[in-house]
Amino acid sequence: MDDESLLIDRNPFPLGLDDRLRAQLTFLVEADRLKTVLRASPLAAADRRENDAEHSWHLALMVLVLAEHANEPIDVGRAMELVIVHDLVEVYAGDSPVFDPAATVDQAEREQAAAERLYALLPSDQGAYLREVWDEFEAGETPEAKFCKALDRLEPMLLNWLDGGGTWQMPGATESTVRAREAGVVAGATALGSFTSRLVEEGLARGWIRR
Amino acid sequence: MDDESLLIDRNPFPLGLDDRLRAQLTFLVEADRLKTVLRASPLAAADRRENDAEHSWHLALMVLVLAEHANEPIDVGRAMELVIVHDLVEVYAGDSPVFDPAATVDQAEREQAAAERLYALLPSDQGAYLREVWDEFEAGETPEAKFCKALDRLEPMLLNWLDGGGTWQMPGATESTVRAREAGVVAGATALGSFTSRLVEEGLARGWIRR
Ligand SMILES: [Ca+2]
Repeated sequence: MDDESLLIDRNPFPLGLDDRLRAQLTFLVEADRLKTVLRASPLAAADRRENDAEHSWHLALMVLVLAEHANEPIDVGRAMELVIVHDLVEVYAGDSPVFDPAATVDQAEREQAAAERLYALLPSDQGAYLREVWDEFEAGETPEAKFCKALDRLEPMLLNWLDGGGTWQMPGATESTVRAREAGVVAGATALGSFTSRLVEEGLARGWIRR
Repeated sequence: MDDESLLIDRNPFPLGLDDRLRAQLTFLVEADRLKTVLRASPLAAADRRENDAEHSWHLALMVLVLAEHANEPIDVGRAMELVIVHDLVEVYAGDSPVFDPAATVDQAEREQAAAERLYALLPSDQGAYLREVWDEFEAGETPEAKFCKALDRLEPMLLNWLDGGGTWQMPGATESTVRAREAGVVAGATALGSFTSRLVEEGLARGWIRR
């Protein structure tokens, strides 16, 4: 994004608003952009690609329903925080499809710059808090982060299955890169990994994934 | 929805899947439909209407950032559960815009029928749990439910403000119906209610809301 203006600049809030609340609402309005960041994954329920906000909601619902499959006990509330926040930097950095090598070249730098810019909109205590939530997800070391990363890999595999291909058909996707994704599921949730392994076997058998 | 088929019926999962996990994943795939349920609200970041999944994600982020403004202390994790689940029945019942009297006539019946159908897809303990989460939100009696209902009213008001009208321009919207929405914010978060009150005053002054 070259344009440095904020969404709220189009229609500034009325005067007289407390500074802290103004900062919070400015951030929350800016976050609306996540609804326009398209992922590579096709929806199951419509003929279009998924956006980051929908994806993040879906992961939160998966946390609620699949928590029992985590490899270690997890704090469900903390896990929901991780998934709600995990893609926020993409409002400025854009999505970097996992099977597209070109997209991932400078991904880390772009996302760090986006985080600096985005979290600076919040009161500093809250900017630091959400940054810490994102860092925890990215590091993938806590039980919650491991599980949420597993779900982040499982969800597009479900969409690919429903689509009969989806991102498994992208140029960079082959049996080995798809299996690498599957390994990320096993690391956080072995039972779900057994399931994705079956999906991949069957996807290979049906020609939905290239060998 | 007259069509009784499930999304997963288009491409059933491979055989040999544990019954409990199959039920959980069937529900999670069916939930993809929430991404296709359009609300009346216009996005701030693009020229289209918001869908329920995006809206639910936005509320979860608002819970994280605005929790300090709740009228009573809240459990942030529980509040996130409420907002993630609060519109799920709309996968079958559709959205019922608040300023459209026709849409709200049989809303309660449609949503109850949708809940019966949707939550029956889950293992019974989890169907009962999510149903209870939804019932808590609907009843609006706990501190978390009051606060989440306040956010559910605040979020479209922010979008209307950014749009310079939005759903405030719908046929059923007038100063009194808009102020009734605002009252719902005050009930859960007085400080946020003072803000929406300023938005409404200013919206009236600018002719974005009819007197
Ligand atoms: Ca609703």
